[in-house]
Amino acid sequence: MSDLRELAINTIRTLSMDAVQKANSGHPGLPMGAAPMAYALWMKHMRFNPRNPGWPNRDRFVLSAGHGSMLLYSLLYLTGFDVTLDDIKNFRQLGSNTPGHPEFGDTPGVETTTGPLGQGAATAVGLALAEAYLARYFNRDGHEIVNHYTYVLVSDGDLMEGVCLEAAALAGHWGLGKLIFLYDDNEITLDGAADMTFSEDVAGRFRALGWQVLQINDGNNVDAIDAALAEAKAMTERPSLLAIRTIIGYGSPNKQGTSSAHGSPLGEDEVALAKQTLGWSTTDSFFVPGDALEHFRGAVEAGAAAESAWQARFEAWRAAFPELAEAWDRAMAGEFAPGWREQLPSYEAGASIATRSAGGEALNVLARFAPTMIGGDADLAGSTRTLIEGANNTGPNQATERNLRFGVREHGMGAIVNGLALHGGLVKPYSATFFTFSDYMRPAIRLGALMDIPTVYIFTHDSIGLGEDGPTHQPVEQLMSLRAMPNLHVFRPADATETAGAWAAIADLDHPAAIALSRQNLPVLAGNDEGIHEGVSRGAYVLSEHESGEVDAIILASGSEVSIALDAAGLLEEADIRARVVSMPCWELFEAQDGDYKEAVLPAAVTCRVSIEAGATLGWSKYIGAQGIAIGVDRFGASAPYTRIYEAFGLSPGHVAEAVNSLLAD
Amino acid sequence: MSDLRELAINTIRTLSMDAVQKANSGHPGLPMGAAPMAYALWMKHMRFNPRNPGWPNRDRFVLSAGHGSMLLYSLLYLTGFDVTLDDIKNFRQLGSNTPGHPEFGDTPGVETTTGPLGQGAATAVGLALAEAYLARYFNRDGHEIVNHYTYVLVSDGDLMEGVCLEAAALAGHWGLGKLIFLYDDNEITLDGAADMTFSEDVAGRFRALGWQVLQINDGNNVDAIDAALAEAKAMTERPSLLAIRTIIGYGSPNKQGTSSAHGSPLGEDEVALAKQTLGWSTTDSFFVPGDALEHFRGAVEAGAAAESAWQARFEAWRAAFPELAEAWDRAMAGEFAPGWREQLPSYEAGASIATRSAGGEALNVLARFAPTMIGGDADLAGSTRTLIEGANNTGPNQATERNLRFGVREHGMGAIVNGLALHGGLVKPYSATFFTFSDYMRPAIRLGALMDIPTVYIFTHDSIGLGEDGPTHQPVEQLMSLRAMPNLHVFRPADATETAGAWAAIADLDHPAAIALSRQNLPVLAGNDEGIHEGVSRGAYVLSEHESGEVDAIILASGSEVSIALDAAGLLEEADIRARVVSMPCWELFEAQDGDYKEAVLPAAVTCRVSIEAGATLGWSKYIGAQGIAIGVDRFGASAPYTRIYEAFGLSPGHVAEAVNSLLAD
Repeated sequence: MSDLRELAINTIRTLSMDAVQKANSGHPGLPMGAAPMAYALWMKHMRFNPRNPGWPNRDRFVLSAGHGSMLLYSLLYLTGFDVTLDDIKNFRQLGSNTPGHPEFGDTPGVETTTGPLGQGAATAVGLALAEAYLARYFNRDGHEIVNHYTYVLVSDGDLMEGVCLEAAALAGHWGLGKLIFLYDDNEITLDGAADMTFSEDVAGRFRALGWQVLQINDGNNVDAIDAALAEAKAMTERPSLLAIRTIIGYGSPNKQGTSSAHGSPLGEDEVALAKQTLGWSTTDSFFVPGDALEHFRGAVEAGAAAESAWQARFEAWRAAFPELAEAWDRAMAGEFAPGWREQLPSYEAGASIATRSAGGEALNVLARFAPTMIGGDADLAGSTRTLIEGANNTGPNQATERNLRFGVREHGMGAIVNGLALHGGLVKPYSATFFTFSDYMRPAIRLGALMDIPTVYIFTHDSIGLGEDGPTHQPVEQLMSLRAMPNLHVFRPADATETAGAWAAIADLDHPAAIALSRQNLPVLAGNDEGIHEGVSRGAYVLSEHESGEVDAIILASGSEVSIALDAAGLLEEADIRARVVSMPCWELFEAQDGDYKEAVLPAAVTCRVSIEAGATLGWSKYIGAQGIAIGVDRFGASAPYTRIYEAFGLSPGHVAEAVNSLLAD
Repeated sequence: MSDLRELAINTIRTLSMDAVQKANSGHPGLPMGAAPMAYALWMKHMRFNPRNPGWPNRDRFVLSAGHGSMLLYSLLYLTGFDVTLDDIKNFRQLGSNTPGHPEFGDTPGVETTTGPLGQGAATAVGLALAEAYLARYFNRDGHEIVNHYTYVLVSDGDLMEGVCLEAAALAGHWGLGKLIFLYDDNEITLDGAADMTFSEDVAGRFRALGWQVLQINDGNNVDAIDAALAEAKAMTERPSLLAIRTIIGYGSPNKQGTSSAHGSPLGEDEVALAKQTLGWSTTDSFFVPGDALEHFRGAVEAGAAAESAWQARFEAWRAAFPELAEAWDRAMAGEFAPGWREQLPSYEAGASIATRSAGGEALNVLARFAPTMIGGDADLAGSTRTLIEGANNTGPNQATERNLRFGVREHGMGAIVNGLALHGGLVKPYSATFFTFSDYMRPAIRLGALMDIPTVYIFTHDSIGLGEDGPTHQPVEQLMSLRAMPNLHVFRPADATETAGAWAAIADLDHPAAIALSRQNLPVLAGNDEGIHEGVSRGAYVLSEHESGEVDAIILASGSEVSIALDAAGLLEEADIRARVVSMPCWELFEAQDGDYKEAVLPAAVTCRVSIEAGATLGWSKYIGAQGIAIGVDRFGASAPYTRIYEAFGLSPGHVAEAVNSLLAD
């Protein structure tokens, strides 16, 4: 290996161990072992512009093994991103841009938040799918404006996680040829030798999934990695896995190749010894040889040149296809074409329609206003009603269709949709499955929420109201559980009109959204569309009250129980009790309203409050007070026609009216 | 095929389509396609006693593709379990023992609840592991009392799910030779042809995981299936997958082989046509040919004989090894040997210890009192502190050790631990990982909760208090989300003493439990162990109050925030405000207390209430009222040393005292 190359690689290693040592926390082993492959990739293959991390056609790099964050931070600093040596010194400190694991939004050049294993790899499948879709949609003969690779550094741990396996299966099935995994095969996990838990034939498994697998037996052999990367790039029909045998903590004489190099600082003495072993000229911390830095910083010029060449192509394309360019601009801004709001469906009061059906109708309208709005389902499109009409399905070696058919792989679906949103250019990418299976996707939803990206998670069959499939398929605690998740906006519309309003709110929203929709038909409630859409956009609103405007009691509800609340108010009115019905389709939006609006909807003076919602009651006390009565489902469901279950579980107008009466009698 | 055999198989088919038709809901296709393999398995290989579904040494059968429940119900009825023809006619009706998907506890002969795909297969790995462990522990030369197979019927959907892949990897790694998957390879999923989403080389993938794979090209060829089952049983070193090509909805002339036979009734006309095609003598619903029934009911006698032969062996073993037999009885009852409670560790007030460490100590004490208490971790034992001292680790072809090393496969771990609990004979099987990764396991935890089985899910690093690893690793919403799940008991002890008390409560509990433990050291609080254990067993208790017994304000807290609450009470006392501190380690146990106890702990008259907990505040209003102040973390975390985060997030005694003051000033 040339001296300069070795110097550069060892700079990654020493920076990483120094930063971990100073923070007294972190994972030095991966950066030290994987430095050569990172060097080969970043310096010989990857196209990126350190001075413009947002360049749309950059190659994407995902460090799925996010615990090795110092590898990425070292690369970002060395190649000239807006990450300084001082930032490196502030590794894992409050407010720094070098947090413990890579966090999207905190650090320029970090494409996605990683750390929970498997997520990065699966998200990267979404990035590669986005590239393929956008290339197909925007490229024209002689005008190739979308054409980049997605590289992923994965660890043993990533490859053990089900979410990675699901997404890898789809990548192979779809034939995502520009997706390349670099597998840091270091034979060590946090707790010891990897073969204590991991003895499978990784190459065989990936080949069975339709991947090309290339083996590199010496992770320090940059030329071999270089050659393998070239081969992987040349294979455009199938994704590639480079299995690269490395030595964790390489350079640390007493810890390399063992789990003690994995998740703890090496210790001052060992750091010094490692520097000696690596031929370092000093034991000073954070020493960066000038030659190495200069070499890495070549990336700045190379990146500028690459982007500028692309920019020329892009301008030529823009000139040749002005309408397409307009679509590009909107897609990159994540916006719908003007006019979508007026086209949302409206419904006649009294009609009966499941909100899943209304959801599908609204989705189809929005899809007409954003050609790069894509999404799909986990083998339940017939039930979730989420197919885009007239669009094709993905299939074997067929990745670039609008209806993404994920198979029964909810977790992979969630992560892939996150990747679609992260890539840029795809408007409101969505997933769809039954609400109870939101649990399968939860780690991916959480990452979407943490990154605060504009994904949409569609969940139908949103309560015991799904009926016969029974308790395994009936969500009970999912609604409240997702409300507990920061940033995520959870919608549960009451009828078809609110559903259209919820989609309108989601289209306007700069956060991830989940929408819970009914399997069963629900009556379309009275009220003008505009007023209801406005109400939904505020999260909660007064749906009905006594004509006098007087309020003896408030009934709060969401989703399918709103019509029960209205019926209860009717029963109460017969007894001269004036009940206001408040529909609460989105708690998060309601919380964001000002105090006046909240007081107008839920006047503090009215303490007689009953809530009804077909889910866990935990959390409703916030709105009904400790003395209010929350009617809900604090047990698992049952298998039966749904009307029987509602009756058996006490979700009825009579029960609500009784509760109001009992409170008023107190 | 002999006429009788065909008649028997067609009886399964016709019963299944009739039941689905009558319920007007369900999945006829799988039972019709898989009837021959089910026949071959149940009538030629499986050892079971319909009149004693609890026979400990029975072969286990798991219908992982739970939507095909009518296959199982047909078999249970026909072979003579306590499922009647009337029960079949009540398929999917309220209160019947034939719910939409198989539900453990509802129906004799149902080994585990299935429906959410992948779970059954993964749970079955736990059943097979349980068998292997118990065989090693209890069998003696010449005395084989534990020796059974675990059979699983899996669908395409199961094989797509990550949880199945994780568990299958472990089954191959561990070499669970008595685990046999029958893969109903019908090439159809709910939404259409399976190859729209699933084109991988299944056999290759399973071989890469260390499985034996046998191919059967005609799913109607009972002899071929029979022979393959014999071959699979003979292979005791590796698990086996029988890939059986079937035709979904076999017998339905217009729907077989298509997705329209998958998830909906065939329709009256098609049912009639199918019966004609199958050579059925009548179109009457629920017709069971006498010959077929008699043939199936042979299972009653065969089962009685098998159990009685085993019983003789068992009695001989009992006589030869009376002490072992005593351990067996306790293990089967799920009990610890007497004396465990007294041996739980106690701690000196003022010492500083992380509750994860205290948890490991209590676990190790309990493990000494139950030799078949086993469990493990997802590559984090060094951090979760959950290894049983002196016990070995599982490893390649080494399944029967107490420390189960699951690798980075949280979801598979959760399902496998459910299987351990379901098998019987293993006391309080447990899993362990970081609390934030509870999300990965959530569908398995939910099934454990739905089945209400005595699993223990240990979660350490239970809040932002884990520090530098940052937001991906810091649970925020997990605690409240798990509290929303029915049946699950969620413990979050305040110190080492409460941790021992929590383990004591878990040992006594007949429900699944989750326990959230701190990474950081926490002060051991004052108080006698017995009183604290008693307090924990009641879910919440008065930890401290003013010596006068007067209460101006109540501070409620759990876990690491209890000591902050105590410090806040100290600050308030300086200002002559008498604050009671209530520790709430387990909401579910507190909810189960009578009204008097609840009122004694949280007197309604005291409305000045502040809660502090390092997690989502949603839900606390229940105890503090709408006017109370909940201090918590309603945002994602941050990467920094934890004391900095606590400070930045306002989790401090001063902030609590301020909140109390502000309420008192109102």
